[in-house]
Amino acid sequence: MSYCRRREALRKRLRQSELDALLVTDALNVRYLTGFTGSNSALLVHAEGDEASVFCTDGRYRTQSQRQVPDLRRLIERSCQLRLATLAVEAGIGRLGFESHVVTVDGHAALAKVTGADALVATSRSVEVLRLIKDDAEVAVLREACAAADTALAGLLGEGGLCPGRTEREVARDLETRMVAAGAAGPSFETIVATGANSAVPHHRPTDAVLRRGDLLKMDFGALVNGYHSDMTRTVVLGQPEQWQRDLYALVAAAQAAGRAALRAGAQLRDVDAAARDVITQAGHGEDFVHGLGHGVGLQIHEAPALSQFGVGTLAAGMAVTVEPGVYLVDRGGVRIEDTLVVSGGEPELLTLTTKDLVIVPC
Amino acid sequence: MSYCRRREALRKRLRQSELDALLVTDALNVRYLTGFTGSNSALLVHAEGDEASVFCTDGRYRTQSQRQVPDLRRLIERSCQLRLATLAVEAGIGRLGFESHVVTVDGHAALAKVTGADALVATSRSVEVLRLIKDDAEVAVLREACAAADTALAGLLGEGGLCPGRTEREVARDLETRMVAAGAAGPSFETIVATGANSAVPHHRPTDAVLRRGDLLKMDFGALVNGYHSDMTRTVVLGQPEQWQRDLYALVAAAQAAGRAALRAGAQLRDVDAAARDVITQAGHGEDFVHGLGHGVGLQIHEAPALSQFGVGTLAAGMAVTVEPGVYLVDRGGVRIEDTLVVSGGEPELLTLTTKDLVIVPC
Repeated sequence: MSYCRRREALRKRLRQSELDALLVTDALNVRYLTGFTGSNSALLVHAEGDEASVFCTDGRYRTQSQRQVPDLRRLIERSCQLRLATLAVEAGIGRLGFESHVVTVDGHAALAKVTGADALVATSRSVEVLRLIKDDAEVAVLREACAAADTALAGLLGEGGLCPGRTEREVARDLETRMVAAGAAGPSFETIVATGANSAVPHHRPTDAVLRRGDLLKMDFGALVNGYHSDMTRTVVLGQPEQWQRDLYALVAAAQAAGRAALRAGAQLRDVDAAARDVITQAGHGEDFVHGLGHGVGLQIHEAPALSQFGVGTLAAGMAVTVEPGVYLVDRGGVRIEDTLVVSGGEPELLTLTTKDLVIVPC
Repeated sequence: MSYCRRREALRKRLRQSELDALLVTDALNVRYLTGFTGSNSALLVHAEGDEASVFCTDGRYRTQSQRQVPDLRRLIERSCQLRLATLAVEAGIGRLGFESHVVTVDGHAALAKVTGADALVATSRSVEVLRLIKDDAEVAVLREACAAADTALAGLLGEGGLCPGRTEREVARDLETRMVAAGAAGPSFETIVATGANSAVPHHRPTDAVLRRGDLLKMDFGALVNGYHSDMTRTVVLGQPEQWQRDLYALVAAAQAAGRAALRAGAQLRDVDAAARDVITQAGHGEDFVHGLGHGVGLQIHEAPALSQFGVGTLAAGMAVTVEPGVYLVDRGGVRIEDTLVVSGGEPELLTLTTKDLVIVPC
């Protein structure tokens, strides 16, 4: 059972920090450690073992928590954090870690009233550090999420969904509906569809702008499956491309390939960014690549590690990241190409399987 | 300009608390005070006036912030909070409020490094208190959001969208697509469609369960328009209802009417809940109404005030709330009826205009 293994991995860290227990209050961290998907919960992970650990949620989730968290002691109470803090005091816990990057100043004051301020130990991102490295179950779900997005785009292209006359909004909803039909719970973030000059806006929101022959059309979208987020971007041309469009596409594709080639356990985050960025800079478009190369994905659409010029640290096997260079020519059009991949000691596993050859939509 | 008026209202509160300025870091509070919709921002509201107030966002939002926040001094920097804290120190601000219900323990430590811990004054929910009372512009947007949901349901019913054989998921997507066609940016929360025995689960998520003749079908959904959330629930019967279904529906409809009748400026929150709850309790179903009567809506789908047995405080004119009693008979079916309304000194304004008569879907 992977949840049990994850809690055991966390316990190792607690012992290293000489904590008796950690009060986990971030909803995604609770989900990661237990599988619970409700909106109100907390988890007391005891350094000694699961026998002394306790999960808490409120009455709305009595049945659901029974099913999702059968392997831990469960309490039902609305004020989950305070209930578990009280329990920690009763259990004689001396050093109680809390998630200092999550708990607010007011929340901390309320906890301190229960435990005394001295018992609370600020503990930053100890679960997030575990979440960096995806286990097999997580990679399998990410693979499904990426497949749902691939399937949606294949259907859209195959069934004439990108014909001139449709609006960006219509295409966005179509992609989303197709992802759901392909097994997604929904889109993993607000779908971006940007046509013509709009494709030069990195995070354009779909409007009523109409697709026209000759447009570059950029689609950045992803699927949510079991809480995991996929993320992909493809840019196509509606009708026969002009030479500048072909050149721009070839440049971004070369940069994306260079970024993927640099993606390997042990690589510096900034070096992976540089591998792609150098290709674009050498072509004279450095200033038109206005964002980082990529980001981690998992229970959040944006999580660590950040592949950017300012990224500090190295890649490790099992990290799931995007590689998404873009070049944006204001008032003309832009190209971005993005895959989701899993880092390994050798070549990364490519989860996004749609072609990266320039797709020319017949019209 | 309503943003300017809102900042002026906040300034009054700052002066009462003898704060020189408030560092606003909650994204919705920044949006409420400026109209800015990006994902990274902070706002320093100076007690003296807008001339001394400063807005900060990062480079991605340079153009957008120019358009959305033309009336304030703007800074572009990634670390918005810290940049504005530095600026406050430079401006000689002595007592700087921060949102202690939003800022994390780690975030507070980072701010204190810049300002010194003594300069920071914990300030809870001062913008949220203003947000409780909707101004005309907000009510107008909520009215649109409610209309989009009404329109979607009317289309679904009118075009045979609830015929037996469809799945809960299909109906949910259909409603969402229709809301977008009616002008919504998207659904305001995860659409609930629950058929047959599933309708007895208060927050059921749509599954592949198939609609069948004889089912109670509960739909809880809403539209997002300009950041504002509408919320409505209707329960219909597929084909001719049995007597228990008619009785259950009549009971909930009576409770909902009683709740609406009690909704008036000056009423105690718990008394409004009680007005509806008493009807259900007297019919012997008190234990089958397992949640509060309603909640505030606005920039969040759930916000203050809470209409519940435990609600403390009174209603005021301009509050936008839901009234949504439900009775759930496990393994048989449930009924919930929900409107969004705006409180006034007299009868509340009803924003949800779909009929509350029992709708019998012909099939």
